[in-house]
Amino acid sequence: MKLWGGRFATAESKLMEDFNSSLSFDKTLYKQDIAGSVAHVKMLSKCGILKKDEEYLILSALEEILQQIESGSLTIEGSYEDIHSFIEAKLTEILADIGKKLHTARSRNDQVAVDMKLYAKEKSNEIIIDVQRLIKVLKELGQKHSNVIMPGYTHMQRAQVITFKYHLLAYVSMLERDARRLHNAMDILDESPLGCCALAGTTYSIDREFTANALGFSKPVNNFLDGVSDRDYLIELLSAFSIIMMHLSRLCEELILWSTKEFNFVQISDQFATGSSIMPQKKNPDAAELIRGKTGRVYGSLISLLTTMKSLPLAYNKDMQEDKEPFFDSVDTVQASLKVMAEMLKTLKVNRNHMKEAVKMGFLNATEVADYLVLKGLPFRDAHSLVGKIVLYCEENQKAIEELNLEELNQFSNYFDETIYDYIEYENSLDKGIKKEMK
Amino acid sequence: MKLWGGRFATAESKLMEDFNSSLSFDKTLYKQDIAGSVAHVKMLSKCGILKKDEEYLILSALEEILQQIESGSLTIEGSYEDIHSFIEAKLTEILADIGKKLHTARSRNDQVAVDMKLYAKEKSNEIIIDVQRLIKVLKELGQKHSNVIMPGYTHMQRAQVITFKYHLLAYVSMLERDARRLHNAMDILDESPLGCCALAGTTYSIDREFTANALGFSKPVNNFLDGVSDRDYLIELLSAFSIIMMHLSRLCEELILWSTKEFNFVQISDQFATGSSIMPQKKNPDAAELIRGKTGRVYGSLISLLTTMKSLPLAYNKDMQEDKEPFFDSVDTVQASLKVMAEMLKTLKVNRNHMKEAVKMGFLNATEVADYLVLKGLPFRDAHSLVGKIVLYCEENQKAIEELNLEELNQFSNYFDETIYDYIEYENSLDKGIKKEMK
Amino acid sequence: MKLWGGRFATAESKLMEDFNSSLSFDKTLYKQDIAGSVAHVKMLSKCGILKKDEEYLILSALEEILQQIESGSLTIEGSYEDIHSFIEAKLTEILADIGKKLHTARSRNDQVAVDMKLYAKEKSNEIIIDVQRLIKVLKELGQKHSNVIMPGYTHMQRAQVITFKYHLLAYVSMLERDARRLHNAMDILDESPLGCCALAGTTYSIDREFTANALGFSKPVNNFLDGVSDRDYLIELLSAFSIIMMHLSRLCEELILWSTKEFNFVQISDQFATGSSIMPQKKNPDAAELIRGKTGRVYGSLISLLTTMKSLPLAYNKDMQEDKEPFFDSVDTVQASLKVMAEMLKTLKVNRNHMKEAVKMGFLNATEVADYLVLKGLPFRDAHSLVGKIVLYCEENQKAIEELNLEELNQFSNYFDETIYDYIEYENSLDKGIKKEMK
Amino acid sequence: MKLWGGRFATAESKLMEDFNSSLSFDKTLYKQDIAGSVAHVKMLSKCGILKKDEEYLILSALEEILQQIESGSLTIEGSYEDIHSFIEAKLTEILADIGKKLHTARSRNDQVAVDMKLYAKEKSNEIIIDVQRLIKVLKELGQKHSNVIMPGYTHMQRAQVITFKYHLLAYVSMLERDARRLHNAMDILDESPLGCCALAGTTYSIDREFTANALGFSKPVNNFLDGVSDRDYLIELLSAFSIIMMHLSRLCEELILWSTKEFNFVQISDQFATGSSIMPQKKNPDAAELIRGKTGRVYGSLISLLTTMKSLPLAYNKDMQEDKEPFFDSVDTVQASLKVMAEMLKTLKVNRNHMKEAVKMGFLNATEVADYLVLKGLPFRDAHSLVGKIVLYCEENQKAIEELNLEELNQFSNYFDETIYDYIEYENSLDKGIKKEMK
Repeated sequence: MKLWGGRFATAESKLMEDFNSSLSFDKTLYKQDIAGSVAHVKMLSKCGILKKDEEYLILSALEEILQQIESGSLTIEGSYEDIHSFIEAKLTEILADIGKKLHTARSRNDQVAVDMKLYAKEKSNEIIIDVQRLIKVLKELGQKHSNVIMPGYTHMQRAQVITFKYHLLAYVSMLERDARRLHNAMDILDESPLGCCALAGTTYSIDREFTANALGFSKPVNNFLDGVSDRDYLIELLSAFSIIMMHLSRLCEELILWSTKEFNFVQISDQFATGSSIMPQKKNPDAAELIRGKTGRVYGSLISLLTTMKSLPLAYNKDMQEDKEPFFDSVDTVQASLKVMAEMLKTLKVNRNHMKEAVKMGFLNATEVADYLVLKGLPFRDAHSLVGKIVLYCEENQKAIEELNLEELNQFSNYFDETIYDYIEYENSLDKGIKKEMK
Repeated sequence: MKLWGGRFATAESKLMEDFNSSLSFDKTLYKQDIAGSVAHVKMLSKCGILKKDEEYLILSALEEILQQIESGSLTIEGSYEDIHSFIEAKLTEILADIGKKLHTARSRNDQVAVDMKLYAKEKSNEIIIDVQRLIKVLKELGQKHSNVIMPGYTHMQRAQVITFKYHLLAYVSMLERDARRLHNAMDILDESPLGCCALAGTTYSIDREFTANALGFSKPVNNFLDGVSDRDYLIELLSAFSIIMMHLSRLCEELILWSTKEFNFVQISDQFATGSSIMPQKKNPDAAELIRGKTGRVYGSLISLLTTMKSLPLAYNKDMQEDKEPFFDSVDTVQASLKVMAEMLKTLKVNRNHMKEAVKMGFLNATEVADYLVLKGLPFRDAHSLVGKIVLYCEENQKAIEELNLEELNQFSNYFDETIYDYIEYENSLDKGIKKEMK
Repeated sequence: MKLWGGRFATAESKLMEDFNSSLSFDKTLYKQDIAGSVAHVKMLSKCGILKKDEEYLILSALEEILQQIESGSLTIEGSYEDIHSFIEAKLTEILADIGKKLHTARSRNDQVAVDMKLYAKEKSNEIIIDVQRLIKVLKELGQKHSNVIMPGYTHMQRAQVITFKYHLLAYVSMLERDARRLHNAMDILDESPLGCCALAGTTYSIDREFTANALGFSKPVNNFLDGVSDRDYLIELLSAFSIIMMHLSRLCEELILWSTKEFNFVQISDQFATGSSIMPQKKNPDAAELIRGKTGRVYGSLISLLTTMKSLPLAYNKDMQEDKEPFFDSVDTVQASLKVMAEMLKTLKVNRNHMKEAVKMGFLNATEVADYLVLKGLPFRDAHSLVGKIVLYCEENQKAIEELNLEELNQFSNYFDETIYDYIEYENSLDKGIKKEMK
Repeated sequence: MKLWGGRFATAESKLMEDFNSSLSFDKTLYKQDIAGSVAHVKMLSKCGILKKDEEYLILSALEEILQQIESGSLTIEGSYEDIHSFIEAKLTEILADIGKKLHTARSRNDQVAVDMKLYAKEKSNEIIIDVQRLIKVLKELGQKHSNVIMPGYTHMQRAQVITFKYHLLAYVSMLERDARRLHNAMDILDESPLGCCALAGTTYSIDREFTANALGFSKPVNNFLDGVSDRDYLIELLSAFSIIMMHLSRLCEELILWSTKEFNFVQISDQFATGSSIMPQKKNPDAAELIRGKTGRVYGSLISLLTTMKSLPLAYNKDMQEDKEPFFDSVDTVQASLKVMAEMLKTLKVNRNHMKEAVKMGFLNATEVADYLVLKGLPFRDAHSLVGKIVLYCEENQKAIEELNLEELNQFSNYFDETIYDYIEYENSLDKGIKKEMK
């Protein structure tokens, strides 16, 4: 079933039909497509282009088709070019000639554009909720272990003492930006392309405000050519998704690290781990590895669509059909990753003693020793250099700084007195200065 | 000159020193680095960590260094690890011990983060202005040729008649989104990382609100670990830049197409074209080709930073130093491309007659014929099919639709009468329905 | 059905099971998986690890499973972790305890590695055949129109006269490199990972040469850890696929250009074009646009896998499961694109007159005029400059160079005499110097 | 200085001149450009297009220019369009009219193509040597610690015992493939484009075999249009470089992991580590982090050039000028990374005791326990499940398997007898089956 063909003398080749058909994936859009048609038909009727009884019949038939699809009695398949052709064909089966009026003052170019925008909005909203749920889980996990200290790392080397809760809150900050980014993308895309028709509007006096409003958009797009050939919003969302996955990949990397025998900071629940087919002892953090691996997949979709859109002249080109699969796949990937991460964290066991133990090794209080010397009057750069030498001494003698006695410390500087031990005690340091914010 | 080394027994290898040093590119940030230090020093003084006279001396010396760099009397070079080390070294040369106090309660991790954010804000603002200038040029060019009609294309096939002005306005819509996208990115990044120190704040009671305010940020970041390891804003901007370049690549493609002998719609000024070293007759649209080609470059930078940030555990890792070159390069590329495009359009010659001539060939009024039949009572889908057959007839007989006489038309449908010719006249059609918006 | 679980106290969550299962896509590998098992079982028997009758029973059962899958009586579905688990489960259903012996001295890590390599080899061979078929079609198309001349372009500006055949042969050269590139990739991957087990070989004295040989590999891999974690060959193939798509995208761009009303050099058959749902006259080169658009898709898969593999420590990590979908999808995309291109070219109509007509406009003989002057004694750089001025004169007077009379030409140089007209005649120029190669 | 301009009425704008000029980066190619001109001039003379004395003068002048550049007395700068224009201008300064003959039967299109190929060959050869040096260092490091055992990991979980040497040999296998891949790319590119001229050869009877031979290519390219517009070899090399960087990123990740306090398997020399500006105790594995980070940079260059080349019609387009910077930068990045890695490994300290200690924890002999049971008669899948239960018991009782007494073991299976302890001793297991290859 084709929506065109009058001017064609030879039939499409079977090879081409398969290559060209988007039905196998754009069937995802059936709900949006019907919603778009409903708004369009109401508008046509309001503008006098369809009669009231035609409107009524078409709306009833569209409703029927929707129900059949959702109930499973109508399967979306067959040699249709796309979901739009499929639904129009079903409509014409039900209504004959009246069904053929649906496409008045509309092209598939504006139809698919409005379908994708409706889908993008719906899914972005869902993802924002997924992000917020994960934020909640992170906060609760932090709260539950609010007094747990651990080493903070830079360059994967132990650096300074922090709290586990505060570490998790770093991810909350990232995710809050993610949610803002999605909101911003939705703001920019919030214009309806319906009514642009193929690229040049229509000789009918249709009401684009009406359909924009009916479909929940803030207004119609400004320009017809842009309206049918704009895929910015998909790229912007794929970029926002890529950043989300990047954030998750960082958290996954940490969960995987922390689950090693070497770190042993956390235990991932059996529910989110798997075993080995050969090594009976293995318990692997597969969920975290999969999310980390899927980051590449979403990056790939971003670069895919950016590449496809490069250098396309106005307005619509068929290349743009390649926007759907990467976007649908990325939506699914991001949603699943956020959900799995949330559940994995909910069931995470925290080995607070190992974390605390790790704080003690690695001179995590060296910066505080330098700060102490600065308070006593040494310029910071000199204090830093001096403490470096103390650390070297400690390494050679396998001691922590707090294990040096005053005599040893005074070999490096006379500024040291008894108060140093209290000053550099790990938990104490979290009570000083702006470090309090970590508690 | 290193800002560390106390704890090191062996010197860095020369190979490593070259590999590690970022001075050759992060010198771009000298102004931002000094601005950050000025704010930091004022805050340290306000909080009683530096004395008033120390503040005064350091500020004077920083001002002196800035002036020396800008006047060219101080060249940023030498075996310094980075711009931060360079400036701290110069300061210490001038002030000795007092200079060594600059780094109190600060790490290079928060220092470079604040430098990059200041740079990103400044450049994004400049790019917004470049975008707005290009918008202005597009509008003026459209206005200057406001009554020029041309074929609108889909699939690079002539589709329907449009105005040249309206075609240009499609790019205005794209660029307006670009400006919004940059504003949104700037909104999200608008938090100061200064004071996060290495990753865990500091035992000093510093005032992060003060430095945030002094540097023009709306507030300090929420989380220290996130503050020093967040590169989201660079990725988000690179994504926005990529979309800008994608838009420009589309316009370039059209300018190149329109400049071909085959289209001959426009002439690019000699000022923005080049010749061939062997073919004396050639005049090539190099500026447009270069912008189109540079699109890949900006996409590459985006994927580069996304890849670099993937799976990095908290907080700072040296990998992040790789954020600078792709970002600096992309800023330069986008700015140059926007400027060149604007100037090229200003000097563009439009061949209105060729455009008009092209409208006549290609059945650009076929949709209007279908609309005409629908008004007479035919369902759109039937009208579409019928007009398809008329087109096939025209092609075989090498005629335009408007060149068919009524007898010929009536062989296809009795709905046709004399009114058809007026209805499908090209310029007339722009007065009908929502097509009026194109004028 | 899990191949592990003895050490697990809690069951996997349903969410995780869905997230983790690869059955929905790695079922593609059922044939390769069974082939790998057949070779493994024969080897185990040969080495005395399985008894002869066990070998016989397992081989028969594997053969039965293969036939059931291929006949459709066994559907690959259910809550299995992957295709390996599925087939082992079916085997155990048939053979009970003996089936449980299949996995002796093997891990899924080496099993999936060998499956993927077998798949990659098979598909690469198929793609080489597709490439060669397209080469044949290009050569035949050129041969069919062997005396057709057309403008050669640089910067999309008419440059010098060439033959249509020779233009097509440029793509033949590209595709020949593509075939070599695929062969090279297959050479490098031609080592069997079977026997590496999880990462460290096995305490059994298995015979890796035997299985390598049985499966058609030249030898076993050198290193167990590398054998299970190497995905180079998929990346190398995805890179080769990307270059193929880049080549096709260039040819598509030209077909789309040549099909415009403006160029009108070729007509794509109705079999590979589609129409518009609204504009009855439209005939769009969809096949070419789709292939061009799908280029982004394959680039995306390349970047996806490169990203996934970045920074993974040895040996196997679950991230690597993300190699399959992008690779499978790219194989399908490249194969379909090559096939569609070949068929589209077979049915292409060439408008030789329009091509020839285009040669005459655009000063395509300007370089020959310069060559003429050089033969007469002028240095090339001066000749080039002088001909540039002639072209400017021609443009102002709307003449071709060959339309200037001798008097006009002599105003520019006295070197011109009557012989110039013959020298710069378009078809003649193809008989001179190395241009003969174009015929 | 332009090599064109005769047909231009208006001068290039300054903005365009800067945007268009490639001199600032293609000056890298001065040596290759002169080598190409030398071969070209010799050929022109041999073919009688230049006179012997002209050849002599031009070759002398080219030699002089080369020496001046290398000695530093001639700086490559100024308002030249590119390195080709620069050198031709210098030649004409020295020789006047005779210099203007250099460009006979040559275009910059074939000139730059031959320059890039010469550069690509030279650099690829250097990189192959860098790869081989790193292979040597890895082998030596393994040899030096040939009896060191360590845990092998999958999913970053301790899996089975391996040798440190064997782990390093996995990287040797990867690097050997890298070298092969570079060789293959060089094989494919080994055809000279010189003589293709702009796109259509030349009316001169030049000798392309001669120049191909003189420049060390195996033969001239098959097709002129392809010769000037082929950038496959750069993409193929960038892909090979990306895989090299991916390999290095994996090794870096391991070095960074192994350098953590938690693993503590190795110590990176002070020569390849750096410190912190604030935390005096820090010693960071910066070299490894930088290489890991630079992986993104090379991936970015690959995607950049793939994007640029997409959909470019034949033959040369100015977009292709964007091939140089990403390629030059990637060559430098890969070379520096390989060299730094080699030196870092040479100075690496291996903590053999920590590695050995780690082997004992993590049930690394569980697979051997299962193998033991299989030898006693249990099907592997049952043995696997049973050992899983033993591990669970061990975890609950905080014991290693070898610490269980026979009584405990027999609770799980009667197959166990005294021989089990010897069978599962770690070092022993490396003497069994194909595990011997690891020694």
